Amino acid sequence: MSTDLRDRLFAELDSIVLIDPHTHINPHWPSATTLADILGYHYYTELVHSAGMPREEIEDEKLDPKEKVGRLIAHMGPIDNTVQYSWFIEIAQRLFGFTDDTVTLDNWESLYDTAAKKMAANDWPEQVLKASNLEAVFLTNDFDDKLEGFDTNIYIPCLRTDDLVFHLAKPEVRDRLATASNTSVTDAASLRTALARLFDHFTKNGARACAVSLPPDFSPRAVSAARADTAIAAVYTGGPEASDSHRLATSHFVFWTLAELCAEYHLPFDLMIGVNRAVYPAGVFQGQDLYDSRVSLIQYKDLFNAFPEVTFPVSVLASVTNQELVSYCWIFPNVVTHGHWWYSNTPSVIEHDLAARLEAAPRTKQIGYYSDMYKLEFALPKFAMYKRILAKVLAERFVVDRRWSEEQSVALGRQILRGNVETVFYR
Amino acid sequence: MSTDLRDRLFAELDSIVLIDPHTHINPHWPSATTLADILGYHYYTELVHSAGMPREEIEDEKLDPKEKVGRLIAHMGPIDNTVQYSWFIEIAQRLFGFTDDTVTLDNWESLYDTAAKKMAANDWPEQVLKASNLEAVFLTNDFDDKLEGFDTNIYIPCLRTDDLVFHLAKPEVRDRLATASNTSVTDAASLRTALARLFDHFTKNGARACAVSLPPDFSPRAVSAARADTAIAAVYTGGPEASDSHRLATSHFVFWTLAELCAEYHLPFDLMIGVNRAVYPAGVFQGQDLYDSRVSLIQYKDLFNAFPEVTFPVSVLASVTNQELVSYCWIFPNVVTHGHWWYSNTPSVIEHDLAARLEAAPRTKQIGYYSDMYKLEFALPKFAMYKRILAKVLAERFVVDRRWSEEQSVALGRQILRGNVETVFYR
Amino acid sequence: MSTDLRDRLFAELDSIVLIDPHTHINPHWPSATTLADILGYHYYTELVHSAGMPREEIEDEKLDPKEKVGRLIAHMGPIDNTVQYSWFIEIAQRLFGFTDDTVTLDNWESLYDTAAKKMAANDWPEQVLKASNLEAVFLTNDFDDKLEGFDTNIYIPCLRTDDLVFHLAKPEVRDRLATASNTSVTDAASLRTALARLFDHFTKNGARACAVSLPPDFSPRAVSAARADTAIAAVYTGGPEASDSHRLATSHFVFWTLAELCAEYHLPFDLMIGVNRAVYPAGVFQGQDLYDSRVSLIQYKDLFNAFPEVTFPVSVLASVTNQELVSYCWIFPNVVTHGHWWYSNTPSVIEHDLAARLEAAPRTKQIGYYSDMYKLEFALPKFAMYKRILAKVLAERFVVDRRWSEEQSVALGRQILRGNVETVFYR
Repeated sequence: MSTDLRDRLFAELDSIVLIDPHTHINPHWPSATTLADILGYHYYTELVHSAGMPREEIEDEKLDPKEKVGRLIAHMGPIDNTVQYSWFIEIAQRLFGFTDDTVTLDNWESLYDTAAKKMAANDWPEQVLKASNLEAVFLTNDFDDKLEGFDTNIYIPCLRTDDLVFHLAKPEVRDRLATASNTSVTDAASLRTALARLFDHFTKNGARACAVSLPPDFSPRAVSAARADTAIAAVYTGGPEASDSHRLATSHFVFWTLAELCAEYHLPFDLMIGVNRAVYPAGVFQGQDLYDSRVSLIQYKDLFNAFPEVTFPVSVLASVTNQELVSYCWIFPNVVTHGHWWYSNTPSVIEHDLAARLEAAPRTKQIGYYSDMYKLEFALPKFAMYKRILAKVLAERFVVDRRWSEEQSVALGRQILRGNVETVFYR
Repeated sequence: MSTDLRDRLFAELDSIVLIDPHTHINPHWPSATTLADILGYHYYTELVHSAGMPREEIEDEKLDPKEKVGRLIAHMGPIDNTVQYSWFIEIAQRLFGFTDDTVTLDNWESLYDTAAKKMAANDWPEQVLKASNLEAVFLTNDFDDKLEGFDTNIYIPCLRTDDLVFHLAKPEVRDRLATASNTSVTDAASLRTALARLFDHFTKNGARACAVSLPPDFSPRAVSAARADTAIAAVYTGGPEASDSHRLATSHFVFWTLAELCAEYHLPFDLMIGVNRAVYPAGVFQGQDLYDSRVSLIQYKDLFNAFPEVTFPVSVLASVTNQELVSYCWIFPNVVTHGHWWYSNTPSVIEHDLAARLEAAPRTKQIGYYSDMYKLEFALPKFAMYKRILAKVLAERFVVDRRWSEEQSVALGRQILRGNVETVFYR
Repeated sequence: MSTDLRDRLFAELDSIVLIDPHTHINPHWPSATTLADILGYHYYTELVHSAGMPREEIEDEKLDPKEKVGRLIAHMGPIDNTVQYSWFIEIAQRLFGFTDDTVTLDNWESLYDTAAKKMAANDWPEQVLKASNLEAVFLTNDFDDKLEGFDTNIYIPCLRTDDLVFHLAKPEVRDRLATASNTSVTDAASLRTALARLFDHFTKNGARACAVSLPPDFSPRAVSAARADTAIAAVYTGGPEASDSHRLATSHFVFWTLAELCAEYHLPFDLMIGVNRAVYPAGVFQGQDLYDSRVSLIQYKDLFNAFPEVTFPVSVLASVTNQELVSYCWIFPNVVTHGHWWYSNTPSVIEHDLAARLEAAPRTKQIGYYSDMYKLEFALPKFAMYKRILAKVLAERFVVDRRWSEEQSVALGRQILRGNVETVFYR
């Protein structure tokens, strides 16, 4: 098959103005200041660490940014095959006018300086958004974020709830909750009140989703008020020393209550299923998490049944769960496929998972992609990667295999890329 | 690669007269009467329901068929990307002369009327069989089916045993068994007698297989007569209130006895592994079942070892089990791969699973495809889908990658499609 | 896409002189004497057995080799679709000048005789190595192998430890250990001494790796010396009758101690994860093992964390574990991907797994392939299969999808095929 067809489809898809439905952008500092912010992305630090660079060299706090970049560049040869490396090159070429195909010890300095100069422009974030065809990005806000000082039409709040679900035993989390909600929590009822106040605050400030990442062994279930009262008391008294049973019951209560509040406040609940934290504690910052791919959406059966009015955009960490995701989306009206997450965010995995989704789940229930980025510069290469794969799958499996027209195929792509972000999150 | 090669292979494969080795055809009413019977297929009702159409609108019993079809058509836009939708279009085009590519509110009525007229012909079922190149279809008969009033050379009986294995605690199932077998069951011996009489009846009426669908946590094992006696007594006395332990022991005893009877009566035992029933109880009719993909064929180790003389055509629900299926078929003489079941019956999954089978398991031990259909009209588009994928895999992985001739490749395809159905079920 | 590009890449890859990093070659009898040694490979005997040939006919000890080959040939029609069969044809064509595409009852005898004549040459092993572009092969030696009488620069010792980890309860294994180590084992300390002496012996004789194959439920953990003392005493007293708990603790102690010795002696520790032995006890020799694909590398978390200085080349048996392998290699500096093992050593599985590795794990941490062969003749067709797939993946996913140059792509292939074998095992 000639690549002309793919190229034509890609050109159409690439012209679409996007909303990125899941990022970790800090709206007060959305784009990079130097290349150190680009190469400080955990994808690079963990890969060069895995390839042999000691953590101490990577995370040396005394290092100035330029020296840090030089050091990292010196260790990137072993990872130049990775798609993650290609994101860096595409940023360099598209945003900073870099003309080579690899960044080496011979050419990095001028790139560094050019980039620093461009990034120093006051409107650099806006320039990046424009160059990336991006209209808005979803954030991942701490539950006690004041949500002040930024344009919530461009930087859209999203309530991240991991701390609430999994770390309420930590005194600092309880303190943050007490302050943010202005509520003294003593039992299930007051905890629910506190959580509801967060929803109040977030929805008043334009939040479009509640989100949480979950370990593979988590299986949501309702907890009775009485059981919750006991568990919460134990967790608030004992903190991290509270028994596993009380901590788990508290997690379940908080999680279930969040789902109830999503129903009440009409917020989709993004579930990011499957990560184990700190599997490799000696790893670099944000480069310590892995997974057990033995997870099933059957664990979420009760949840999906109990909350028909809540939309659950579901991300799975491992490709072996993708067929379940397709099937659950095909059957449950409230389950929506959501992007290609983390370890599944690589071309051959996306191609496999995307093809299975496009052919069997309703087209209205698929959110194609989010960047998951920490700095705005990454939307461009990550979405470009996705759009190339989308063009490939549409070309091979729709135009060729199923004799769709190019127009039909592009329309399907557009819906996945943009349309469904609107219908799911802006209803 | 040009698609000419694929097209040539497809043309050859498409000329083969088929026997469909697994369907849910009702031989007394094998084909559709109106398009409502086509769009009433659970693939459509569950998909439009998942895409937002309320169950009450779909299952409104007072609706006449034409109005029902109109309603469904109005909700099919969101699923027009699915391969399931393409089956509908192919039926409309190939059996009813429809010339458009989508059925919309503007063109559905004339299609409905044309179809109704054609379906009214006395020999419509024969017309459909002919147009589909189908010589015979396997049924899935209730264990108490009288097997009368139809041509068992075209509609081939197959003993479905789910009720016996999993629902003997229900009084109505026990009553049906008592009547069908003319046996009063009180213990293991009399239960075995009752089951043997079903095998007598079925094999005398040309049955070619025994079949059962199994949940992912099922793991067959032999049960001693004494343990079975206790369990059966408890189940026959307590019914659905009998303890889980007694009900499970009864399931195991029935299942194991069925395998013994398959050996005795020389019937293949179709195992359809991996479905959880009623995961989504609020779903439409037949649209409530899902699965936990964490299943392994190691659960069937004792069974495969204990019955070397029984052929087990095995279907797996999730693609993640396909490699195990290939490996178990490669090692165990009595394990045969069987079609692409349900949630795995979509193009990219079939392509992946089929390629792995064709390259590593004996060609004599692979039954390519069955339609699983409820109405004869579906054999045509479902087998066409499969044959297109088979042509693609043979073209790419045999003619191109392994330099096979087209003739050799077609011969392999023919054996998978037709030859092995004969050798496995008609030995 | 034309196959010209693939062919060009293949030609480059095919010219590389290789070291095969994992085989079961017997250095005292490295190549075949007759075709019976070729067709006696378990891939053939288990496949023809699975396709219907009785074990007694296959394993009849009184048969002369030529008659045995004739019998097997008569049963190979049903497996001529398999890639395993294609290895045989490629051996026949490339090493013995066979000019047909299938070996049948009509043409096998002259092939047999030609082969026997060639194999009778004194330098046949060297001829095969040369024809296969092979410089050296790793062995899989019993722990009590004297490692004498062969050139350890060509036949590189590797300490296989399955017997030590899993079968120390067998008196014959304990006797072999006592003799080989000249140590009387009574407790944890003396067992460690005995194991250390094996490492002494192996490393003095040029061993380059320690290796073990592991069942899917194994999860390594440290065992205290006190617990180990009790367990070892029980196992040495009770033998196979020792309790499961004592035997498992002994396994864990031995395994963990091997990892410590790998650190001490600077040996990589090859982990081959996921096989269940004797699942089909009635199968042919070496054709009885299968697996449960429900395994996770999270089971090895403690091990990978505890031994940062040991390199673990990891092989997984099932493709569903490949994404975990890629991810663990991407994060853990000491985890390296290692070949495509056994039931995953077929083209579509390799293609899938290889693509995922090449795009996301450091290029320095991937050992592309090993043959796993028992006779030297198999390196040629197995590596050829792999190199064709590698050329396909590089062509499609790097040259076309990512616009790499052919030179860059070949360089990546070369590193995977050869370079990393040196850096991982010869550091």
